[in-house]
Amino acid sequence: MWDRFLRACRREPVDRTPVWFMRQAGRYMAEYRALREHHGILDIIKTPELAVAVTLQPIQAFELDAAIIFADILTLLEGMGLELEFVRGEGPIIHNPLDSARDIDALVDPPVEESLGYTLEAIRLTRAALDGRTPLIGFSGAPFTLACYAIEGGSSRNYIQAKSLMHTDPAAWHRLMARLAERVGRYLAAQVAAGAQAVQMFDSWVGALGPAEYREFVLPHSRRALALAAATGVPVIHFGTGTAGFLPDFAAAGGDVVGVDWRVDLGDAWTRIGTDRAIQGNLDPVVLFGPWRAVRHAADAVLARAEGRPGHVFNLGHGILPGTPVDHVRRLAEHVHAATARR
Amino acid sequence: MWDRFLRACRREPVDRTPVWFMRQAGRYMAEYRALREHHGILDIIKTPELAVAVTLQPIQAFELDAAIIFADILTLLEGMGLELEFVRGEGPIIHNPLDSARDIDALVDPPVEESLGYTLEAIRLTRAALDGRTPLIGFSGAPFTLACYAIEGGSSRNYIQAKSLMHTDPAAWHRLMARLAERVGRYLAAQVAAGAQAVQMFDSWVGALGPAEYREFVLPHSRRALALAAATGVPVIHFGTGTAGFLPDFAAAGGDVVGVDWRVDLGDAWTRIGTDRAIQGNLDPVVLFGPWRAVRHAADAVLARAEGRPGHVFNLGHGILPGTPVDHVRRLAEHVHAATARR
Repeated sequence: MWDRFLRACRREPVDRTPVWFMRQAGRYMAEYRALREHHGILDIIKTPELAVAVTLQPIQAFELDAAIIFADILTLLEGMGLELEFVRGEGPIIHNPLDSARDIDALVDPPVEESLGYTLEAIRLTRAALDGRTPLIGFSGAPFTLACYAIEGGSSRNYIQAKSLMHTDPAAWHRLMARLAERVGRYLAAQVAAGAQAVQMFDSWVGALGPAEYREFVLPHSRRALALAAATGVPVIHFGTGTAGFLPDFAAAGGDVVGVDWRVDLGDAWTRIGTDRAIQGNLDPVVLFGPWRAVRHAADAVLARAEGRPGHVFNLGHGILPGTPVDHVRRLAEHVHAATARR
Repeated sequence: MWDRFLRACRREPVDRTPVWFMRQAGRYMAEYRALREHHGILDIIKTPELAVAVTLQPIQAFELDAAIIFADILTLLEGMGLELEFVRGEGPIIHNPLDSARDIDALVDPPVEESLGYTLEAIRLTRAALDGRTPLIGFSGAPFTLACYAIEGGSSRNYIQAKSLMHTDPAAWHRLMARLAERVGRYLAAQVAAGAQAVQMFDSWVGALGPAEYREFVLPHSRRALALAAATGVPVIHFGTGTAGFLPDFAAAGGDVVGVDWRVDLGDAWTRIGTDRAIQGNLDPVVLFGPWRAVRHAADAVLARAEGRPGHVFNLGHGILPGTPVDHVRRLAEHVHAATARR
């Protein structure tokens, strides 16, 4: 069943629980590391043929039910006037982070087809290369996570700059978030137009917030971005980590599928999200570093919490980590299928 | 009312909501930075007169209802044979982290009065110096957080080494945790014997876990440590961050007072913990970097969620951050008292 991932997103019956992994194309794979010896991350993302090749690596290697286009949540910011670089060992850096309301108002907003055409082209090529083998997922960062990067200039421990703007100049914060939401929504829609059969919005840093802050400063903008994506008609996945304290609010922002991390019980999370939604998750990526019996045990525990109800997409609670044993990734995908084959 | 903190811990009526702050003695204060120019952190901790002076700095400066002895959650590990150093700009480092079950079994366990006598002496001196002005809190790291430091050798992003031991050799993991639990419990009890009028166990990293892992690998050991502390008869505070996904389990481990971070609504957390327990928290420390009106607004929201029920200790959701405006700390403590004066 080539479309079991899409069917699960729509809570339709499936022959097996679908499985894919966030960051399934990445440093844990030798094929990816070999390519990275000659190319930077942004080179790969911006050269559609290379992005296609990397996107397909895990599809060729493992029993996965979806491909996700190789790209980055931050490329959206580049088109707006922010200078993005991936520094080896340090991760992404924004060289000219937003420092004032004036910086925010000076951001530009060219058509996504112009500034992100390389990823749209990679989606077109990957769709052709996949030839119906699996659906293809497009994605973007969520407005909050993008705003944090744009303001902090890189990853952050406490998000002091971002939260200070939020509280010091809420009007400027909302202007920034509104612009990001429109751009995220248009980018996700453009990915669908290019061939993506589902899209995921990553709010990777949203766990820095409390419930009241999320509702006031983030939810309306996530809702707008997700609504623009949903208008395309394809399934939309709304993913965040550290959302256990405000899952109903997070779910209220939208998404046919809500993605949760491993810090919450999948069954409890589903109840709180509402069983009229699909759920994605939620194995701890670090469990894959343990022995296979521990991986299987933890995967079975996740599957047991989802049993008896359509609409579970098996995934990790966050991306696959560098150094993850490849054999465990392979066996995990196979095990999810074997354990859930229609009994 | 000098003991409103202790009374709130026991859910007795108070004239005002008591307030203290985790890391209330620290780098945000000029008095502390001045002392640090001439002394390392461990020097201060191990020189009782200096530890007393630092402990008293915030009590002299602000309207606080409790002092907390100046010490560190990791000093307990030093006595067991682990080499601890605070490296400027990097935080605490363990030079010989645990790498195997053999390392775990080679740990030693001298009497806490011997290896941690400097903190016990600092507690005796501080009690005398406070002279009943406020109660004094003792503390320790929790077994899980200590185990992570001992295995990872420092702070960690994903706790791959610690979780791998947990899953690869659960017997060795449980032996380590059992030893840490006994030592934590005895250390907390020794602090009470030296004069501490309440104790707090910090499980600062417990938010790395999911509910099932917490229950299996951590809860029994936290319960043991907390029971040893509770046997002294003083109020015990059980603090963790990132616990929103398993608050009932976290509370089940023990503590008269459960400390929660800002990622959860205080009222919801209290309901899930059970209203037969006191609660501590939970203002986001980063809010203090914003304008005063935002600090007051967020503090009022916390107070509103606790209103009408005895047993709230106002605190931040985690420690005060370096760079926090001192004036906001002062005004926040005053505001909590003014806003909750028996109306």
